[in-house]
Amino acid sequence: MIYLDNSATTNPKPKSVVSRANNAMVNYSYNSGRGGYNASVSTAGKIFECREKLSDMFGFNPQNIVFTSNCTMALNMAIKGSVKRGDHVIISSLEHNAVYRPISALALDGIITYDVAPFDYDSEKLIKNFESLINEKTTLIVCMHASNVFGCVFPIDEISKMCKKYGLRFIVDAAQSAGVLEIDSKKDGIDVLCAPGHKGLYGPMGTGFMAVGDGVSMSTIIEGGTGSASMNMLQPDFLPDRFESGTLNNSGIIGLGAGVDFVKSKGISSIYDHEFSLSNMLYDNLSKMNNVQLYTPPPVKGHTAPILSFNYDDYSSEKTAQLLADKGVALRAGLHCAPLAHRHFNTQNRGTVRISPSVFTTYRECEIFINYLKKL
Amino acid sequence: MIYLDNSATTNPKPKSVVSRANNAMVNYSYNSGRGGYNASVSTAGKIFECREKLSDMFGFNPQNIVFTSNCTMALNMAIKGSVKRGDHVIISSLEHNAVYRPISALALDGIITYDVAPFDYDSEKLIKNFESLINEKTTLIVCMHASNVFGCVFPIDEISKMCKKYGLRFIVDAAQSAGVLEIDSKKDGIDVLCAPGHKGLYGPMGTGFMAVGDGVSMSTIIEGGTGSASMNMLQPDFLPDRFESGTLNNSGIIGLGAGVDFVKSKGISSIYDHEFSLSNMLYDNLSKMNNVQLYTPPPVKGHTAPILSFNYDDYSSEKTAQLLADKGVALRAGLHCAPLAHRHFNTQNRGTVRISPSVFTTYRECEIFINYLKKL
Repeated sequence: MIYLDNSATTNPKPKSVVSRANNAMVNYSYNSGRGGYNASVSTAGKIFECREKLSDMFGFNPQNIVFTSNCTMALNMAIKGSVKRGDHVIISSLEHNAVYRPISALALDGIITYDVAPFDYDSEKLIKNFESLINEKTTLIVCMHASNVFGCVFPIDEISKMCKKYGLRFIVDAAQSAGVLEIDSKKDGIDVLCAPGHKGLYGPMGTGFMAVGDGVSMSTIIEGGTGSASMNMLQPDFLPDRFESGTLNNSGIIGLGAGVDFVKSKGISSIYDHEFSLSNMLYDNLSKMNNVQLYTPPPVKGHTAPILSFNYDDYSSEKTAQLLADKGVALRAGLHCAPLAHRHFNTQNRGTVRISPSVFTTYRECEIFINYLKKL
Repeated sequence: MIYLDNSATTNPKPKSVVSRANNAMVNYSYNSGRGGYNASVSTAGKIFECREKLSDMFGFNPQNIVFTSNCTMALNMAIKGSVKRGDHVIISSLEHNAVYRPISALALDGIITYDVAPFDYDSEKLIKNFESLINEKTTLIVCMHASNVFGCVFPIDEISKMCKKYGLRFIVDAAQSAGVLEIDSKKDGIDVLCAPGHKGLYGPMGTGFMAVGDGVSMSTIIEGGTGSASMNMLQPDFLPDRFESGTLNNSGIIGLGAGVDFVKSKGISSIYDHEFSLSNMLYDNLSKMNNVQLYTPPPVKGHTAPILSFNYDDYSSEKTAQLLADKGVALRAGLHCAPLAHRHFNTQNRGTVRISPSVFTTYRECEIFINYLKKL
């Protein structure tokens, strides 16, 4: 199989991830931070190590790394924990349903109002698109770092600067960028970063995190036992306990730690360079095929995530993907849970076929895929 | 180490659980139900198998098994999805913070009011305690099946009958009973069952589920991409998609499937018999020690979960547990995230030392523990 669906989850997982997760299930299946016995204490140490690894990569304090089951959970916690009745929120026109549906639910419940800022490749225009929607009720901007359908990258440092200017909170959805593009909470001015563990960080499925800037206060949407302040009917106010109720996914988290180590050992920029060169090659080849429609301009280094969307002839995206699946190429077709993005690029009727390589994808695999497509 | 903290998470995990989770991370790290390629389709099949295994064990429809990251997440989803502004809710006096804190948060936000029904060993009195708190606003009873501190079992079938009589929804927290006591959605009349995967079902940490009765409608607290009805800004109204947003924990879920197989192969009643006989032996020995305080009457088969709480001399529970930890006995001390239960048994100042055996705990290990305690 030629796997080109790494935007869904990276595959394969590095051997170190599989073995460390496996080892954790055998040696660290204890409730961390609850028991005083050695096994519980050493498990808590292992979990904290993973917070430190993520802290080191993204520039948040280790105790502010909140583990979640996926990026969607992190986004729900961050968004719903940040708004109060009457607030106005701005999102981008490429947001995934992991942002769009929680925002829609809040709006439908009459809690917030929101507007959608159209994406633009020109970052000055893009910033203006956001800026023009700010009103006196606006408190929050939620924006993806990179589109899961079209690979467009948002200038999060510039959006952040604008947020600071207007005193707005800035939540970043790094579903497609964590481990692929450099992210630095301080440099990029991110208040809350939400990311999956199982995509660009090569961790096990079932992992994700919400990284919270110092001094960023949020209400909770999930409460429960934290092993701390247990006589109190309220959630503790300190992190990570405030947002981590119930038993953690120890083997997943420890496996994610191995994924972060893997990414660090390769280097984010060299992973990106590899994936970008494949995107470029794919773009070059696809753009020369008369019966292929591509929806974005050519990839630009640093401004494009390694994700391409296309359609073939007048086929439905599902038909194209199925014909390629029959040849052993794994691609995802359809809407990719991003209706807003398809409206923006006017692909809502057909959806698209999405190509997303990983660090493990080879040039040869991309060539084979292109050859299959030529003979479709 | 003699591990007697199985109420926190069972340890060890069966070899089949570790190996099937490990295998899943290698062979089923694909996004189920999103892609049309073989690997995605076969992964979806594996995940559905796990729904069927749980369906078979608890009597819910397979598509109504919603996977969550732990029991706390399931309880938050069930409780908050079931109430509307103005509702009155009744919980028991032994509830864990996984119920008490979400209920408190809803009450503090002015959404619900609630009352606490005192536990009673006499089930007639217990039912009356619940019944006397019902008012015209009451819509929901949330109750644990077994206390995570004292092992007391609630007669969920009788509470359910009363709920039906008054038209109330009944949510059961099976954190300590799933895989230990027989549970049948139909016989026991459960509307929503919430359970961990990593305790009595011997699955990996990071797993749990919410099982929903047919026709039980609930709002969502988490929204996001479901790979279904993607143009819709609203969550789909069908299960499990409505409550499963974002990427699932494939290796955890598939490992949980192995755990359910393990429990089925042993038989829930024979697992219970084994654990009950150990509880009985522990109770007998502890009750004969002058410097040990036990807080519950002797275990009664079918009416007591294999969980005991004690204190030693005038030691703090933490000191007792630490002295035993020094000898290699893993026990948890303190409040066990259950302040209500400690108020009920008047142990809120010291907490308790908790003993919870699993199917892997041996008679000999319990003897050694008792001997250590005698010489403390």
